[in-house]
Amino acid sequence: MMRRVSLPEEESRFKEFLAERKNFFSGDLFSQTSDIVEQVARKGDQALLDLTEKYDGVRLKEIKVSPETLKSAGIEDNLLKALKRSKGNLEDFYQQQSRKQSWFISRGRSLVGEQVHPLDRVGLYIPGGRAAYPSSVLMTAIPARTAGVEEIVAVTPPSKEGINPLTARALDLCGVSEVYALGGAQAVAALALGTESIRAVDKIVGPGNKYVTMAKKILYGQVDIDMLAGPSEILIVAGDKARPDFIAADLLAQAEHDPEARTVLVTFAAGLLEQVEAELKKQLEKLSTAETARRALASHGLLIRVADLEEALEVANRYAPEHLELLVEEPLAAAGEIKHAGSIFLGNWSPEVLGDYLAGPNHVLPTAGTARFSSGLGIEDFLKSSGLVYYDYQELENEARDIGLIAEAEGLPAHARAALIRLDSRSRNRGKFKND
Amino acid sequence: MMRRVSLPEEESRFKEFLAERKNFFSGDLFSQTSDIVEQVARKGDQALLDLTEKYDGVRLKEIKVSPETLKSAGIEDNLLKALKRSKGNLEDFYQQQSRKQSWFISRGRSLVGEQVHPLDRVGLYIPGGRAAYPSSVLMTAIPARTAGVEEIVAVTPPSKEGINPLTARALDLCGVSEVYALGGAQAVAALALGTESIRAVDKIVGPGNKYVTMAKKILYGQVDIDMLAGPSEILIVAGDKARPDFIAADLLAQAEHDPEARTVLVTFAAGLLEQVEAELKKQLEKLSTAETARRALASHGLLIRVADLEEALEVANRYAPEHLELLVEEPLAAAGEIKHAGSIFLGNWSPEVLGDYLAGPNHVLPTAGTARFSSGLGIEDFLKSSGLVYYDYQELENEARDIGLIAEAEGLPAHARAALIRLDSRSRNRGKFKND
Repeated sequence: MMRRVSLPEEESRFKEFLAERKNFFSGDLFSQTSDIVEQVARKGDQALLDLTEKYDGVRLKEIKVSPETLKSAGIEDNLLKALKRSKGNLEDFYQQQSRKQSWFISRGRSLVGEQVHPLDRVGLYIPGGRAAYPSSVLMTAIPARTAGVEEIVAVTPPSKEGINPLTARALDLCGVSEVYALGGAQAVAALALGTESIRAVDKIVGPGNKYVTMAKKILYGQVDIDMLAGPSEILIVAGDKARPDFIAADLLAQAEHDPEARTVLVTFAAGLLEQVEAELKKQLEKLSTAETARRALASHGLLIRVADLEEALEVANRYAPEHLELLVEEPLAAAGEIKHAGSIFLGNWSPEVLGDYLAGPNHVLPTAGTARFSSGLGIEDFLKSSGLVYYDYQELENEARDIGLIAEAEGLPAHARAALIRLDSRSRNRGKFKND
Repeated sequence: MMRRVSLPEEESRFKEFLAERKNFFSGDLFSQTSDIVEQVARKGDQALLDLTEKYDGVRLKEIKVSPETLKSAGIEDNLLKALKRSKGNLEDFYQQQSRKQSWFISRGRSLVGEQVHPLDRVGLYIPGGRAAYPSSVLMTAIPARTAGVEEIVAVTPPSKEGINPLTARALDLCGVSEVYALGGAQAVAALALGTESIRAVDKIVGPGNKYVTMAKKILYGQVDIDMLAGPSEILIVAGDKARPDFIAADLLAQAEHDPEARTVLVTFAAGLLEQVEAELKKQLEKLSTAETARRALASHGLLIRVADLEEALEVANRYAPEHLELLVEEPLAAAGEIKHAGSIFLGNWSPEVLGDYLAGPNHVLPTAGTARFSSGLGIEDFLKSSGLVYYDYQELENEARDIGLIAEAEGLPAHARAALIRLDSRSRNRGKFKND
């Protein structure tokens, strides 16, 4: 059901597996998406209405979703309680998340530092249609709100019945009241460029399909984006005491997302791969999403046999997975060896689904090896800083000649003059100007 | 010499000016750059040699620059001292820059947090050819080094004499010993994709021309990038006591960079615009870079008349300039009103050139209004974090049913099972497994 390799013997097969996930952008995707972006740029709201009819099968009367629709969406009490619990956990986490603050240092009579501000206006992309992703609402809205963003806007694709009621209620719960019934590349273009009825935002965050991702890439620069997300991934490092039933359940939780989802198990425990395969078969029998999961396991699953824990952790670092489970005897010690992973789950009682819904660390995470250089969504995504430089005359005098030397060497004489003219002026004009 | 508008009366002309800087990417640029990236992907080193001959007019014998070349590059003592002073200031600044650290919180018997690591391998793009930009070496290498990046690689385009000796020496000074004589889109492609002789990096930072910027955009996702930089910009807010000679010098320091450079002066002081124009004329007479500066002022310069300080600061926030000078009586109070700027320079004795060379805050800064959502280069660019989740059985038990509810509502039954199977297992198998 899943491919197998032994490392280091079958290194070349592992390299092939690694290479497979690198290219999820085809040339065709680029031109199709550019075309959609172009239409929104040119025709604004009209393009949004036409594209929504074409791709979502819905002729919208209103692009904007009314706040009453958000408030009145029906949802079971238990589920609402669960969302509130998640919200509480996440607020707790993001309020305490390490956060950049304005700061400065004095150096003699000069002061240098940075002034930190939240972004003004942010757009959340919430996938949808018939399916509901209230967890994506929580995971994007709460860090944005906690960072202090004042205007939080959401887009989510409509079905014939409008936007999903569960998504609607989650938006209301998070205080997001400006919501548009839009999905796909057209929604991203609307947020980035603005139309008659939607004001452009400064940053777009949240998970989407490959058209959404390509639109984010095309529009990056006009607007900031969180990341370019590929298919979801899990890599499980399993030791001798790891449980095949838990492992199979966690692999399936990843595989059911999408036929493109990546599932990898790395182990040094004798016989474990066979036990997991047997468990997978058993658990697939009673799973309503089995067809998707089977395809994902067959196309993008890998069972890796290694000699020991050290080799397993090396494979994990090389793969740089979105989600990493360490089902080993000393998971915190093993985590110390991990440099590249989106989120790390420690031990038997910390399944990856905790991170999907309510533990705290975000579920918007780097995929396809980009954990080598990026982090999950957090309050830092919604903050930015300005450098701050204050010198008095005396401090400038100390450094003006060095500025002049470097500037002249770079072939920029006006740069040199901008420093030196101030020195000259002082000797010529002492006392003439107020701040002298 | 520069265009003029009065605000709010001529709002529509100001809007045109704002719109002009938004689109520095033409379709042609995209296809030309894609073609170069494609060649490097397909032919590796051979493409690098051919493209360097074509664009830099140099047939390289070796792509790699030897460490001896870096060490032995001739440079005057005074200049070396100036670079060392800059290095000292920057190290001081980045060592004290607010920095994300690993952290966690306990919630009952669970622990959530983040583990922070520097990136493994980073590439610096240093512009060059005949001109030298030792300041760009310092501004990119020092924050990378301070963040703890172990492998720092640089590329810089060669002239017939090899890479610029001043750049070479600055690289040596910053301890960057892996250097390649490459520039343009081909250098970016080599760093992002790797070739026979260059190992791919995780992130590319540093300023470049529009081909470099487009290559960064195309390759973003394979590799991280710092930002997409457009032409350099300054906006000066000048009050009654501001000095026309200083203002003119600072506008020219920006304008001499590039005919595309943006220079804006906003003032509420009577007669100041005329005085500045007279000063510009005078200072241009004795400037060797006057031709470039004149073109920049004429094409992309703007003098803005407003009624008072409040309106001036509003214009500054709307423009979101790369560099902002506050030449007003209480610059620190005015800075408190600024939300959007790359770097802010306070008062008469803090010319923007301090930031170019040695004050501390980076000179790699957001342009074209992207200061609305991005920050200058800093140690955060070279750090990334992994979420961390540890629950024991009891804490999982507290939350597993809520996970189940949300997962089922999202149509993801295997997600629900991954939580619930652990609860079931405990009741069935108490004591059977080591960590129970």
